[in-house]
Amino acid sequence: MKVLILGGDGYLGWPTAMFFSQRGDEVMVIDNFAKRRWELEEGVQPLIPIATLHQRIERWRLVSNKTIKFAIGDLQNHRFIYSTLEEFLPDTIIHYGEQPSAPYSMASRESAVYTQANNVIGNLNLLFAIKKFCPNAQLVKLGTMGEYGTPNIDIEEGWLDITHNGRTDKMLYPKKPGSFYHLSKVHDSSNIEFCCRIWGLRATDLNQGVVYGIETDQTILHSELETSFHYDSVFGTVLNRFLVQAAVGIPLTVYGTGGQTRGFLNIRDTIACVALAADKPAEYGEFRVLNQFTEQFSVQQIADLVVATGARAGINVKVNHIENPRVEQENHYYNAKHSRLIDLGLKPNLLDNSTLDNMFSVVSSLKDKVELKSFSPNIKWVYK
Amino acid sequence: MKVLILGGDGYLGWPTAMFFSQRGDEVMVIDNFAKRRWELEEGVQPLIPIATLHQRIERWRLVSNKTIKFAIGDLQNHRFIYSTLEEFLPDTIIHYGEQPSAPYSMASRESAVYTQANNVIGNLNLLFAIKKFCPNAQLVKLGTMGEYGTPNIDIEEGWLDITHNGRTDKMLYPKKPGSFYHLSKVHDSSNIEFCCRIWGLRATDLNQGVVYGIETDQTILHSELETSFHYDSVFGTVLNRFLVQAAVGIPLTVYGTGGQTRGFLNIRDTIACVALAADKPAEYGEFRVLNQFTEQFSVQQIADLVVATGARAGINVKVNHIENPRVEQENHYYNAKHSRLIDLGLKPNLLDNSTLDNMFSVVSSLKDKVELKSFSPNIKWVYK
Repeated sequence: MKVLILGGDGYLGWPTAMFFSQRGDEVMVIDNFAKRRWELEEGVQPLIPIATLHQRIERWRLVSNKTIKFAIGDLQNHRFIYSTLEEFLPDTIIHYGEQPSAPYSMASRESAVYTQANNVIGNLNLLFAIKKFCPNAQLVKLGTMGEYGTPNIDIEEGWLDITHNGRTDKMLYPKKPGSFYHLSKVHDSSNIEFCCRIWGLRATDLNQGVVYGIETDQTILHSELETSFHYDSVFGTVLNRFLVQAAVGIPLTVYGTGGQTRGFLNIRDTIACVALAADKPAEYGEFRVLNQFTEQFSVQQIADLVVATGARAGINVKVNHIENPRVEQENHYYNAKHSRLIDLGLKPNLLDNSTLDNMFSVVSSLKDKVELKSFSPNIKWVYK
Repeated sequence: MKVLILGGDGYLGWPTAMFFSQRGDEVMVIDNFAKRRWELEEGVQPLIPIATLHQRIERWRLVSNKTIKFAIGDLQNHRFIYSTLEEFLPDTIIHYGEQPSAPYSMASRESAVYTQANNVIGNLNLLFAIKKFCPNAQLVKLGTMGEYGTPNIDIEEGWLDITHNGRTDKMLYPKKPGSFYHLSKVHDSSNIEFCCRIWGLRATDLNQGVVYGIETDQTILHSELETSFHYDSVFGTVLNRFLVQAAVGIPLTVYGTGGQTRGFLNIRDTIACVALAADKPAEYGEFRVLNQFTEQFSVQQIADLVVATGARAGINVKVNHIENPRVEQENHYYNAKHSRLIDLGLKPNLLDNSTLDNMFSVVSSLKDKVELKSFSPNIKWVYK
């Protein structure tokens, strides 16, 4: 299978590229290095220094004897994605190539507009390119569980059978996104559903939960193959951030009550889910939505797990409840379905003590590299 | 009241500006003349030659002794809308300033991307400008009934109370838009709802049906005050188009079976609805959605009405069912609620014989100006 990975230099994109390459697929990655620029803007960097994409790909060739193709370019430049699809003719396109941070999108008008233009227009250019050059390819698009927000009813996987005044229809599940970033993913989903419906394209929208983890089977093969691990308040996901705070001996920064409940998954399961979606594609004309997470936790529960992890290592971890920089419900119903990837064959890596202890051990060994200022959330959802 | 009208040079924007001005409000219009450029791109023009905005405003001053302020600029340039709001400090912002044609948005990648970037980014810039300079102002945004598509359940006004697995929530009504243009309006609605929810802005989203009509109480005061009336396949709405076809003696072009049912309203009711929304604003933090149409008709019913109108004038009007250039349901359930504007005080101008005869008389008097090539739909929803 020919697999094209958009955003192949990222936290998830790079391990995904190595996974498909290792198992024998023909892999190409593209990236515009926007994430590395946003890091500079925010003054943050990954915990582990990351090799350049050129170095990573060369190292991968030496380690695996396999070649990953790559091209540097921006999805907002349609000529770039047109020529890439025309030349590579992928069977599967895995689209991680978007601005992925909710706080970044809320920092200013400029960042909100940038996020929506980058994500929505890039994705539109991609849809037209698929239609023109490889209409049989499946688009595997990374969405987010945050598209749904925290409704007071069960969250289904993308679609909802609604009965109203005695009549029934299958509708796109109504969304309640919580940031301009999450909104951009909602817009993407709507645009993709339309292209499946009108043009007969096929797509899987993976509404992913909060990813944690540092390693996959491929990243551990060489230090130059490691993936970017963020612990800062802009790009760091909550468990990754808490573990680093515990390692450096500062209190965990729980926003508000910590009652916010979300779906979580291990980075290894991200790769597994994307592979399942690629290997068992949507039908032509189908807009398939899979909720991609394995367990639900509240932020407080995540904090408690990190406190216990610290205790097992002989460290007393404190928890600070700080003012919530976001506008979100802190105590709410949350029951999100996530059975369809299991039905496709996913064997979850659950958040057990061994996973936590391993992550804690890795970040503890790197604690001298931690920038303490990075933890404070300096982007607020409401500001003057 | 200080009323700012975005897209004030348009079919609806200009009559709206004169209406508020006549009744004594302080009115400012802005426009970037994009519509006049799209007309040149498509090679079409309004049936009635339109004066420049400068001429219109000067004529209005001579006729009414009232001044309409104006500024020329683009909502995609945030500095323009920031400075406009900062200086004018409107109480009400009526936002017609978007690319309004579904066929135009479907013509190419370029026009799809343009439509979504122009509409979504322009609206985002506006939301940030409102938050910064006039957070107490109400945004009155023109949406479209086409955001809903043609679901198999009753269409409510923006929100739907959903009971699912024994639990209930009030959710944004799920959308099934039929073009990249309609999608842009869905994206706008999502962005506006978020800004009401997070920032406490107040907004009314007017999901408007298909508008017909040539005249309002102000446009008839002088030939330089007339509004742009389109009959072409790109910008002309269906009843306007059919009446011109009947006047020039060519068959009405019904797409497919003509079973497509939509909500319709008179341009006079557009003005009335916008005024009601302005005078009875949404609450702070409220995203209010009003379905803005007065009657439902199928395309075939509209054709039948035009045939009957022709017969009353002694003209034999023929109907051609041509291949549908769009991808849409041609036979479907359609029951869209539209009681909230009536509750606010709307007195509808229904599509009676006198309205039809008057419109037919006006367009018949102008039939020498009709460009016959403009009727053929040359933009298809699916193409190679």
